[in-house]
Amino acid sequence: MDAMADIHAARRAAARQAAREAAGTPADGAGAFLVTDLTNIRYLSGFTGSNAALLLGAVPRDDVIATDGRYTTQIVAQAGDLPAVIERDCAGALLGRVPTDRVAFEADAMTVAEHTRLAKVGPVLLPTRGVVERLREVKDPGEIELIARACAISDEALAALIAADGIRAGRTEAQVARHLENLMYDRGAEDTAFETIVASGSHSAIPHHRPTDAVLATGDFVKIDFGARYAGYHADITRTFVLGEPAAWQREIYGLVAHAQQAGREALAPGAGTRDVDGAARAVIAAAGYGDRFVHGLGHGVGLQIHEAPSVGALGTGTLSDGAVVTVEPGVYLPGRGGVRIEDTLVVRAAGPELLTRTGKDLITL
Amino acid sequence: MDAMADIHAARRAAARQAAREAAGTPADGAGAFLVTDLTNIRYLSGFTGSNAALLLGAVPRDDVIATDGRYTTQIVAQAGDLPAVIERDCAGALLGRVPTDRVAFEADAMTVAEHTRLAKVGPVLLPTRGVVERLREVKDPGEIELIARACAISDEALAALIAADGIRAGRTEAQVARHLENLMYDRGAEDTAFETIVASGSHSAIPHHRPTDAVLATGDFVKIDFGARYAGYHADITRTFVLGEPAAWQREIYGLVAHAQQAGREALAPGAGTRDVDGAARAVIAAAGYGDRFVHGLGHGVGLQIHEAPSVGALGTGTLSDGAVVTVEPGVYLPGRGGVRIEDTLVVRAAGPELLTRTGKDLITL
Repeated sequence: MDAMADIHAARRAAARQAAREAAGTPADGAGAFLVTDLTNIRYLSGFTGSNAALLLGAVPRDDVIATDGRYTTQIVAQAGDLPAVIERDCAGALLGRVPTDRVAFEADAMTVAEHTRLAKVGPVLLPTRGVVERLREVKDPGEIELIARACAISDEALAALIAADGIRAGRTEAQVARHLENLMYDRGAEDTAFETIVASGSHSAIPHHRPTDAVLATGDFVKIDFGARYAGYHADITRTFVLGEPAAWQREIYGLVAHAQQAGREALAPGAGTRDVDGAARAVIAAAGYGDRFVHGLGHGVGLQIHEAPSVGALGTGTLSDGAVVTVEPGVYLPGRGGVRIEDTLVVRAAGPELLTRTGKDLITL
Repeated sequence: MDAMADIHAARRAAARQAAREAAGTPADGAGAFLVTDLTNIRYLSGFTGSNAALLLGAVPRDDVIATDGRYTTQIVAQAGDLPAVIERDCAGALLGRVPTDRVAFEADAMTVAEHTRLAKVGPVLLPTRGVVERLREVKDPGEIELIARACAISDEALAALIAADGIRAGRTEAQVARHLENLMYDRGAEDTAFETIVASGSHSAIPHHRPTDAVLATGDFVKIDFGARYAGYHADITRTFVLGEPAAWQREIYGLVAHAQQAGREALAPGAGTRDVDGAARAVIAAAGYGDRFVHGLGHGVGLQIHEAPSVGALGTGTLSDGAVVTVEPGVYLPGRGGVRIEDTLVVRAAGPELLTRTGKDLITL
């Protein structure tokens, strides 16, 4: 068994125990846990195919994975320590062979239609929520290394874009986005972490703007929200620039957002309430009279998904764990004029947050 | 009301009627249909945000859409003919204001957890399956124009790749994939239709292989499965090349797959059973003794999603409609040696299928 197989087995042991507690299945080992969320399957087994189910039995030797005929070779290479069933109806095949009459399942990863179908197979299905997602909140050193690598690729690509004068008046948003993405690929990104946002001028006031053929012009804010994906793990970083000399209003909201972002970063600590972390940044913006211009949450977890637990927002009820990886990304958006967002990806640590995205945050004029 | 608004209103009228029939809601107009699948929402309204719900009421003036604060501007621009509710819990907000006690919903687009939550809001939820997906099977002229444009971009990019000697020994699979993707972007693709597959040598025997740093070598099959996305619509095309002089076994399976692909294309007709279309191609491969090496279905619908109804496979029960857009993509895969797939995107027409991907299919040696 190689090192990753050991890690996957340990994760499955933790998930097995957590599912029992969540579903109230008998602790004597009569229960089982059907995992159908593909990211969770990857986390627990290493398998990355697009059709799969994983059944965690009462004991490790009962664990079994299923996929279809397209992945016969791949599943052996990625999850060779698990017996594999090859069948198109993965969940149905696993439920049909489970030696228990009560099976926990992931209520956020099964549609009503699939549930109706699987409920006829035999075992009683017990809903659970967030069992594996909560385990995934705390990253192990190997995971943090991969996220840090994705962040470093992103930082280096942005630096190369700036060095090449890639963010300049006359180019379109779409051209800048493609240039930046190619620089990430050059540095080993396997994909972008999400659709790169390049938003210039009044577009920068739209929190999630898709790059268009709009041409960058002197005086514009240019907001760039992007990241690389590396070995399945994501980076998430936003920087906002000004083309030419910033106007007073641009300096004002840039400084405000930078201040709020610092307050948010400083509030990150194991045990801190996610609502309080959001509040630390939001209070800065509200005190300046722009509270209604910060229209989204402060941040979110980052890992095998670009958005995952924990959510860091005004309505949050959870707390941060040591080893959680989150974004801190306040913004102020003035419709029709422009907006600023500044975002980092960080690891929550008792000794203080560890910054993974290291591009500077002073206002850069290009 | 502009032309697209008229088209969206007509689609909503058809969906309203189809949902009534599917859910058995009263024909007197007491019912409503909650649409939560984002692609279906786009099809019925034009709105492309990542959080939305659409409620089709008893009559058009009761239709209402919901999204969250990130999309306040966008929803007016894209779906300004519909009243919009701005609330994070889109489906809950719409269900809370519906003037009926029976609401049809999409059982394939709602998780068990969401259903549990929404079932407490008030109205009885009646499951339906495939209501809008079936409407989407038949493309209107505007949709076919966009798919044809996506296919043309893909054809042109592949031609440019070949002209630039982009598929050559010494390059990695990943380099070839990026080159091809950039050529699509140069020609107006808004994104790739899916993750580009470049599979060389023994990798070509893996039906869905992700490009790696494996280096292309003389004698290799190079299988390239790719497509552009344009205005939301997808192209899907696969071609397989040989670097240098093909070996006899390569000529044999290439010719076999080309023959099977032709048989599949020729079987496309309004009213044809999808199983029979699959069978027409499969019979050719089976007769040559390679039946067990064609490990997937023959094709699938293409439109706002890269894979959508109808499925064209051995287990299919449906028939093809005039105006459906489907792929025909048989393959033969010899593990450890190599594989061939040839794929086109076509429109099903009474006068014979209309080919949208027009790159030639004779064996090209590079």
